[in-house]
Amino acid sequence: MPGRGSKKIAQQPTLADFKVGVDNVIFSVDTAQNRLLVLLVMRQEEPFSGHWCLPGTLVRQGESLEDAAYRILAEKIRVKNLYLEQLYTFGGPGRDPRECDGSYGVRYLSVSYFALVRFEEAELIADGVSGIAWYPLEQVPQLAFDHNKILEYGHRRLRNKLEYSPVAFEVLPEVFTLSDLYQLYTTVLGDNFADYSNFRARLLKLGFLYDTKVKVSRGAGRPASLYRFDAEAFAPFKDKPLVFI
Amino acid sequence: MPGRGSKKIAQQPTLADFKVGVDNVIFSVDTAQNRLLVLLVMRQEEPFSGHWCLPGTLVRQGESLEDAAYRILAEKIRVKNLYLEQLYTFGGPGRDPRECDGSYGVRYLSVSYFALVRFEEAELIADGVSGIAWYPLEQVPQLAFDHNKILEYGHRRLRNKLEYSPVAFEVLPEVFTLSDLYQLYTTVLGDNFADYSNFRARLLKLGFLYDTKVKVSRGAGRPASLYRFDAEAFAPFKDKPLVFI
Repeated sequence: MPGRGSKKIAQQPTLADFKVGVDNVIFSVDTAQNRLLVLLVMRQEEPFSGHWCLPGTLVRQGESLEDAAYRILAEKIRVKNLYLEQLYTFGGPGRDPRECDGSYGVRYLSVSYFALVRFEEAELIADGVSGIAWYPLEQVPQLAFDHNKILEYGHRRLRNKLEYSPVAFEVLPEVFTLSDLYQLYTTVLGDNFADYSNFRARLLKLGFLYDTKVKVSRGAGRPASLYRFDAEAFAPFKDKPLVFI
Repeated sequence: MPGRGSKKIAQQPTLADFKVGVDNVIFSVDTAQNRLLVLLVMRQEEPFSGHWCLPGTLVRQGESLEDAAYRILAEKIRVKNLYLEQLYTFGGPGRDPRECDGSYGVRYLSVSYFALVRFEEAELIADGVSGIAWYPLEQVPQLAFDHNKILEYGHRRLRNKLEYSPVAFEVLPEVFTLSDLYQLYTTVLGDNFADYSNFRARLLKLGFLYDTKVKVSRGAGRPASLYRFDAEAFAPFKDKPLVFI
């Protein structure tokens, strides 16, 4: 029975000492090119100098986890609106090579945050870093530390949020066609998640899309109606279980 | 522009040092009495000596976060099956009074885990602690640290999981009546989440309940059919968005 009454015995097990990092998985969708993008920066310090990684920082004295997440975001990107939430905490021993490197056993824990920004509104800040880029998800290289794992976790969260919440409307422009919306879902969830006619019927039935009566022509097809998300119509459903696709 | 190019200037901001705790929100449902229960232990050390709190521990050298969560669980409870997942990380400055107490600025971060166990199978281990109890949720007192907040967060996660996943069947006995299932949902989600006939029709339509053809009589009503969860019928829907109520 491990640890039974362990608090009472004289010899205490040695507690681990930690530095705490915050790593942000910042997604955006280039709706014009139907690409799901993630923000990466190039590390300019060891370990993993010259490797791409998620934008992150170590938490400072007196700083909350969320403040650290917003700090690193503000250093890398200028954006008016963004959606940010905590993702997951990765803290196994050995996840950071600095642990072995004269660090007196200090471990590095990563609290990851998930953010979503509108691609058109987001302006990258390149000063003082050796590289920053919106990487298409399928072209992401081997990242520093366990960041591929964190990214994979973030991608799963994004898919879940599209399925269960109206987060899509925080990424789309104010007004959009049903085809734009469908493309966004296809870009994030992959092809064949649903056929277009089902998707269209289901979304309209939910009653959260307001038809602006304005039509746009794109390419050769018939003019398409522009919709906007009706937050007021959605409000009563906010805390109810709901599937969006 | 806070932090702009901060990596380049000579004076680095001081990083915070952390100890990392794991706190478990362990839920169970007493189906006989229709009560949602949470496992609490009484602290026997300062700070908050004599106060109830969530069972927790500090992470040791070489120990993963999850291992620490399982370790504290095994110290407090004997159980055959359990569902465990990471909940949230609370790490704001000032959340633990030990931070000010000659601790040289060491902060205490809490990675919380969420667990669900079958009440009938779970055996509390009282040795070496001054108190341990399954507390009905509505009777939970003021807890040590920010544990009421962590508990509230865990309760929200439990409600979400009942709405979107088949977690209910990890809490119910192997076979159960539709009324048992309804009672479980009512106990966790509160009254009026749905009326019984809708709930019954919806659950049966999903096709995951296997009618064992065995009937039981309870009280004065007609004998009720016993069902079991059909994991095989559910498998194809495992990664699809779905609402259970």
